[in-house]
Amino acid sequence: MSVQFNKVAILGLGLIGSSIAHAVRAYGGAKSISGHAKSAETLRIAAEIGFADNLHATAADAVKGADLIILCAPVGACGALAAAIKDAVEPGAIITDVGSVKGAIVRDCGPHIPSHAHFIPGHPIAGTEQSGPRAGFAELFQNRWCILTPLPDTPPEKVDALEAFWTGFGSKVERMAWDHHDLVLAMTSHLPHLIAYNTVATAGDLEQVTQSEVIKFSAGGFRDLTRIAASDPTMWRDVFLNNKDAVLEMLGRFSEELSVLQRAIRWGDGETLFNLFTRARDIRKGIIAAGQDTAAPNFGRDPTHKS
Amino acid sequence: MSVQFNKVAILGLGLIGSSIAHAVRAYGGAKSISGHAKSAETLRIAAEIGFADNLHATAADAVKGADLIILCAPVGACGALAAAIKDAVEPGAIITDVGSVKGAIVRDCGPHIPSHAHFIPGHPIAGTEQSGPRAGFAELFQNRWCILTPLPDTPPEKVDALEAFWTGFGSKVERMAWDHHDLVLAMTSHLPHLIAYNTVATAGDLEQVTQSEVIKFSAGGFRDLTRIAASDPTMWRDVFLNNKDAVLEMLGRFSEELSVLQRAIRWGDGETLFNLFTRARDIRKGIIAAGQDTAAPNFGRDPTHKS
Repeated sequence: MSVQFNKVAILGLGLIGSSIAHAVRAYGGAKSISGHAKSAETLRIAAEIGFADNLHATAADAVKGADLIILCAPVGACGALAAAIKDAVEPGAIITDVGSVKGAIVRDCGPHIPSHAHFIPGHPIAGTEQSGPRAGFAELFQNRWCILTPLPDTPPEKVDALEAFWTGFGSKVERMAWDHHDLVLAMTSHLPHLIAYNTVATAGDLEQVTQSEVIKFSAGGFRDLTRIAASDPTMWRDVFLNNKDAVLEMLGRFSEELSVLQRAIRWGDGETLFNLFTRARDIRKGIIAAGQDTAAPNFGRDPTHKS
Repeated sequence: MSVQFNKVAILGLGLIGSSIAHAVRAYGGAKSISGHAKSAETLRIAAEIGFADNLHATAADAVKGADLIILCAPVGACGALAAAIKDAVEPGAIITDVGSVKGAIVRDCGPHIPSHAHFIPGHPIAGTEQSGPRAGFAELFQNRWCILTPLPDTPPEKVDALEAFWTGFGSKVERMAWDHHDLVLAMTSHLPHLIAYNTVATAGDLEQVTQSEVIKFSAGGFRDLTRIAASDPTMWRDVFLNNKDAVLEMLGRFSEELSVLQRAIRWGDGETLFNLFTRARDIRKGIIAAGQDTAAPNFGRDPTHKS
């Protein structure tokens, strides 16, 4: 199924917003692109790169005439954006978002959605550790899943149209309830980021090992965790503030497991360690078989890092 | 400084052992290569690939005539290897290893080193998540650090010769005391692996989120941790059994930090989260500036994973 919206309004022009604009240019999905960003500097950079047809200083101006509106701001800022556009949304328009938490989006944006529009929360599971309007690129969503969490009263053809918009970028789409999304992502995304941030913080606070040693010898494994710990701090602050219960649940599970590993190390229980380490290989194989990571050793990094 | 040993004996032909053999062929460092592996299957594969000049079913046969002997077995197996070769080591030969723990190597191998040989424990901070004799490649050590932990009575010219062997592969060499090595690596390598294994185990034990969902939506961050969690289970069991004190120390620090983060989430303390997340970016920048990781987004992975 091919889809062509008349005009997509992208509110927020960071990594995800700018990537959507590039993807629309590259693969279609809308005849024109209007963009809005809160910061004048972001608008200036967006104009310089030229990934939108029109740029607007206010969100309300950007959504005029748009039949698809995508909120691409940090989760904590989406409620205010929805409030700012509510009187300018065209009848029949789809309003969606790209936030990493869906319960908070339903809670914060829901009350501001006009009854003549259709609110379909969404979340492309795609990104890089970079942020801002220069970080976007058209291929970001290729081969990645996009989760839609439609509310029960949304007309199916509207959900189908939004699904087709994402599949046009090379994404696969799955639909689920918002509360299940928040639990799944707490495990596959929020907990890993928290653990990565925490490991980096641990390394930064040692007195026996210098920062310079941590950096030099990071190829032993530490560097892998620093990539996701370099992600946008505002976005991630908002994720943890807005998915508190699910994150604390996963963190509790993580800590329980860690106690078991810690005891195995303390007691010299090699069998428990070996069995747990062996099981971990299977999930990596599953991820590669599902096309969600590269099979190349070291993520295919060039060992010289000269590229 | 260029170095040319007469014959290097590589005992253990997995990822590191086979990579050393490939690197000697590619960059020099020894006129001939003899290899030994405990498993007949590994010897068969090594013969098929042809990265050694001679292959031997016993370690003692492999070290005959060798002026450089490298133990490339898991840490827990090196003591037995040192014992097996002790009557066959040539006078003046250097014996080194590549283990991720140095205290245990000194403890287990030290007593078996003949007085006419020179024991210089070593550790190249290089590897991939793959293992076995097919996993090796000549470029593995390029741009990576190799740590040597010479004992006080080792003649400096012997340490210099071993250093030149590693720099010939494109490595940089640092010398430090074995106990400091074990503390540094507990932070930069052992703790990250433990955390990665533990995160994967947590994901595998959930009843609310299926394995299939974890795999599908792993691009949210989880997949990054699964790479190091796919490393060789035997090697890593031995690391944790043999660097217990330093690992438990770092794990204690990690758990303390995690309690702070957990409380900040529970209390909705966005400022603490934001400040900690912001600091984490600096260490990533330091790692890239030091040439220890790629600056390309997502480690430069091809998003389609078709390569």
